[in-house]
Amino acid sequence: MAEQLKSAPPPSNNNGTEEQRDLGFGSVVSQKSHLRLLNRDGSFNVHRKGMGTAFSPYHTLLTMDSWRFTVLVVVSYLLVNMLFALAYLFCGPQALQGTEGEPGFARAFFFSVHTFATIGYGNIIPVGMAANIVVTLESLVGLMGFALATGMMFARFSRPTARIVYSRTAVVAPYRDIHAFMFRITNARSNQIIELEAKIIFSRFEQTPNGRMRRYFQLELERSRVAFFPLTWTIVHPISDSSPLKGITERDLLDSEAEFLVLLTGMDETFSQVVHSRSSYRAEEVEWNARFRSIFVNEDDDVTVDLDRFHEVERLTS
Amino acid sequence: MAEQLKSAPPPSNNNGTEEQRDLGFGSVVSQKSHLRLLNRDGSFNVHRKGMGTAFSPYHTLLTMDSWRFTVLVVVSYLLVNMLFALAYLFCGPQALQGTEGEPGFARAFFFSVHTFATIGYGNIIPVGMAANIVVTLESLVGLMGFALATGMMFARFSRPTARIVYSRTAVVAPYRDIHAFMFRITNARSNQIIELEAKIIFSRFEQTPNGRMRRYFQLELERSRVAFFPLTWTIVHPISDSSPLKGITERDLLDSEAEFLVLLTGMDETFSQVVHSRSSYRAEEVEWNARFRSIFVNEDDDVTVDLDRFHEVERLTS
Amino acid sequence: MAEQLKSAPPPSNNNGTEEQRDLGFGSVVSQKSHLRLLNRDGSFNVHRKGMGTAFSPYHTLLTMDSWRFTVLVVVSYLLVNMLFALAYLFCGPQALQGTEGEPGFARAFFFSVHTFATIGYGNIIPVGMAANIVVTLESLVGLMGFALATGMMFARFSRPTARIVYSRTAVVAPYRDIHAFMFRITNARSNQIIELEAKIIFSRFEQTPNGRMRRYFQLELERSRVAFFPLTWTIVHPISDSSPLKGITERDLLDSEAEFLVLLTGMDETFSQVVHSRSSYRAEEVEWNARFRSIFVNEDDDVTVDLDRFHEVERLTS
Amino acid sequence: MAEQLKSAPPPSNNNGTEEQRDLGFGSVVSQKSHLRLLNRDGSFNVHRKGMGTAFSPYHTLLTMDSWRFTVLVVVSYLLVNMLFALAYLFCGPQALQGTEGEPGFARAFFFSVHTFATIGYGNIIPVGMAANIVVTLESLVGLMGFALATGMMFARFSRPTARIVYSRTAVVAPYRDIHAFMFRITNARSNQIIELEAKIIFSRFEQTPNGRMRRYFQLELERSRVAFFPLTWTIVHPISDSSPLKGITERDLLDSEAEFLVLLTGMDETFSQVVHSRSSYRAEEVEWNARFRSIFVNEDDDVTVDLDRFHEVERLTS
Repeated sequence: MAEQLKSAPPPSNNNGTEEQRDLGFGSVVSQKSHLRLLNRDGSFNVHRKGMGTAFSPYHTLLTMDSWRFTVLVVVSYLLVNMLFALAYLFCGPQALQGTEGEPGFARAFFFSVHTFATIGYGNIIPVGMAANIVVTLESLVGLMGFALATGMMFARFSRPTARIVYSRTAVVAPYRDIHAFMFRITNARSNQIIELEAKIIFSRFEQTPNGRMRRYFQLELERSRVAFFPLTWTIVHPISDSSPLKGITERDLLDSEAEFLVLLTGMDETFSQVVHSRSSYRAEEVEWNARFRSIFVNEDDDVTVDLDRFHEVERLTS
Repeated sequence: MAEQLKSAPPPSNNNGTEEQRDLGFGSVVSQKSHLRLLNRDGSFNVHRKGMGTAFSPYHTLLTMDSWRFTVLVVVSYLLVNMLFALAYLFCGPQALQGTEGEPGFARAFFFSVHTFATIGYGNIIPVGMAANIVVTLESLVGLMGFALATGMMFARFSRPTARIVYSRTAVVAPYRDIHAFMFRITNARSNQIIELEAKIIFSRFEQTPNGRMRRYFQLELERSRVAFFPLTWTIVHPISDSSPLKGITERDLLDSEAEFLVLLTGMDETFSQVVHSRSSYRAEEVEWNARFRSIFVNEDDDVTVDLDRFHEVERLTS
Repeated sequence: MAEQLKSAPPPSNNNGTEEQRDLGFGSVVSQKSHLRLLNRDGSFNVHRKGMGTAFSPYHTLLTMDSWRFTVLVVVSYLLVNMLFALAYLFCGPQALQGTEGEPGFARAFFFSVHTFATIGYGNIIPVGMAANIVVTLESLVGLMGFALATGMMFARFSRPTARIVYSRTAVVAPYRDIHAFMFRITNARSNQIIELEAKIIFSRFEQTPNGRMRRYFQLELERSRVAFFPLTWTIVHPISDSSPLKGITERDLLDSEAEFLVLLTGMDETFSQVVHSRSSYRAEEVEWNARFRSIFVNEDDDVTVDLDRFHEVERLTS
Repeated sequence: MAEQLKSAPPPSNNNGTEEQRDLGFGSVVSQKSHLRLLNRDGSFNVHRKGMGTAFSPYHTLLTMDSWRFTVLVVVSYLLVNMLFALAYLFCGPQALQGTEGEPGFARAFFFSVHTFATIGYGNIIPVGMAANIVVTLESLVGLMGFALATGMMFARFSRPTARIVYSRTAVVAPYRDIHAFMFRITNARSNQIIELEAKIIFSRFEQTPNGRMRRYFQLELERSRVAFFPLTWTIVHPISDSSPLKGITERDLLDSEAEFLVLLTGMDETFSQVVHSRSSYRAEEVEWNARFRSIFVNEDDDVTVDLDRFHEVERLTS
């Protein structure tokens, strides 16, 4: 149920009630927001505030990209060693002794590196109770920090992350004797995704007795499931007489702020994990009377696809 | 089956037999206990003794909070090093030599740190067979302890832990032309939970031919599933003519020690793992003739929810 | 299909064909073997030879008990260091120098420990190309061995291992107006197992047109599923008129080498992993005209079970 | 849908439409390619180019065999230390000092090993700002490289990898009163696979109104599922009157480039993970009028199978 109970529309005669097909956006989102429901990357156009939901360090570390993660690790490493360098300096001028260099921040910093990374050349050594207590602390921080980094690195590895690429645009193209709404997808990784299933929810604003609000329709697919996904898959909704797209024009789609929500579920074979992917096409991202270019190279025995043509669409002149 | 076979009540005419709806509590719990069946945090009000079930170290380490886990690691680290310090002292006054400090517990302790953490500055060194054997042992303990801590840290990370927050109270509020039992939930983490399903079991004491005992009823929901859960979800049981709550008053609920058991199942998208959450509302935790305050901030294009209002309920004056 | 195609019996009229209920044992096992099909711990009474199936190191390391695993780690650690000690000795008397001890195996061994565990005090140091090459090798072996041990330790942790305890005996006890076959189970760990399902396959030798061979019958349960499993669960097959046990005597069970195969499936809540458990009761392990003692302690508000009475059965004198 | 929309054949009257049974190969593959659809090891005969799909380092590291992985680790270790050795040499002749050896590449290399592996004997020490900065960098690279190797090693461990072995050939053998297409499988590992399910898709070229193209037929199995898989399983398709193989000859199979696609799904009990396996038999890999040799050794009480006879087939002279 959404926040507004009174204005819920009567269920339509498609399969599943309309409320089940709104996917959880709720009627407030469905009535008020003119933003797209789903971003192209599958994230939501909603914001939460309050209740300390702003920052979840683990989730952030887990999902940030590799480049930022690396920078974060490097910066943390330098900062921690600087902090401990200050702590050693604070222990007094006699706390660190040895053959290397003159006393000062640099020596303390390098000694901290020797300790944090558990190298311990012994060219600089801790002297006195204070320095040794800091060493004890740093050794523990070093070990646990490293355990944490190792765990985090593996957690990042073992996440099931399908990288499904969606064609930049969807098309409405001739199909058998009628037309069909189509887009295509491919797997950007070299792992196999199997048992892939697709679902398209068509959403648009309609004038209802309760005012202008979004309605949701699940579109029937020519084929909603493939056992393997070695190449690409063109997902096709034939615009038959029973389709909610029947008789609709490009103008209608734009005016009703239509959006095609795409939900994919499959299984990543490498880790045997269920993976999900979602995206959406707004009315502006649908090309009418166009079709996808073939991506098959030299279509004979050796089956090769050229993914550089993946997004390419050719306008039909008819 | 529960412990008392003879007194089992005849199955009611709801979907599923009543025994299947008692969820595994068994008739002893159902007849005798006046405690709540489920605590707010989803744990059970039962105790087990005997058969060494008291302590499972792995499970304890895995589920304890981060703060305690950290304290435990620090204390263990200090204790282990103290133990090895004693072992080195036991090897005799000549066992540890070097430039640092005078012989004694402190020197032995710091040497142990250098060894356990595999730093090995060399400012203190082991001399003689005994000390070197202790070093061999400590190095292995250090490595394995560290491997264990790393594994445990990752195990703690990778546990699927939905933090569903349940509204502090449930309400019985007007809904369309009738009333409905409602509560709301939100996700306290920034990960996405998808394919979320809810189930409510209503339980209360009734006078039966076999004495006063709990009966269980599954409540029909306006909607039992959402595909996404980006914001909040208000779970609604309309009190229609077929509802076991039909005609019931606040007094009835309290007198029959009623409890609403809530079971949620969803999928954590970050790790593609199924997550479970449960809670319950006792009669005292249901507000009658009240409704939840809207948590939408500035309900226009930019959809924002203010979770600080999540638990807020407003009494209806009608 | 089993190895003998011609002698397959006609399917019986129970639900599922009999071949599907033989669970994969095949007709050779079903006709020839008088051993129990499943051991109490759920393992199979079959042996495989040939094709290098004898030893799978990873699986062995993963499933061996903690005590053996620890011994194995300690012994491996000592052995590896001994091997490297020999390598250092092989590099000549000048290869290891330092303040500590006289040249010899002990010194080489301790130096190896300093290196393998990456301590590196520096009281013994490698001198010359040969010793340094061995150090390079050992450092890598040390790092990878440690990575392997850490990975293995976590793999051992994260395995979903239900420790379901089955009552030592099953009983045939009065149940309502008839009798029932029953046994009980409990969870020996403190984790929660939810959505637990049980299946009992009854198997016995029968005289068929193709000779004496095992037949399989799935038994209907009073209740085949519990949502929670906080205490114990008594699994009950009522011996109704449609039961294959109807009219059977203790003698019959023993003579037909009957066996009750028990299959459990549930979900470990800690890791959200599906867990399986199986066991079996042979005719000798069924007590007739007996019932389980109650394990509820002081059956009032505070629900406590005493698992020390879990296996206890009381004979009925009727 | 495949790339060619117009030429799709009408659905046949088997269960599931033919398009659903083509498993995702698409009509281009189905019409043009004369290569086998699935290789014996379950991989696909397709190639992708463009869009940077060529190299995915993580997936490659995860799925490469242990031998290559080890070589890669060793070579990387040596290379990284060589690079850092050059960096230390670049810092000038005074950058590394100590008791060990003369300045030069070897000393720098060994010092790098002491640092990367965090041993730090101290017999060679870094002197000056430049060398110490390189040490700081190398220590971080060493720690992170090690964390990465550990994570990768565990990821390799925890992958669910069924090693189902398929009999080298399939056979068409007498079965009851008719014939049947059969092959057998065994588990090459010592872990248990449970709830194993099999599916066979029979594919061959046929002359259709749209030209010669592949058609797909799912074959009915005598038994498509076993609860356990302790020994071997012979998967049997009886060539009954409703079978698409009815009346077919060995010549027909070869001429129509027939292929039997085999899909298996089960659950690895060790990690409770779903595992998949696939393979295929081409017409040339089917032996007619032959049967599998029994692999049961001494078929009495003690059930033993000899897997060395697993692939053996005996011709029937009838």
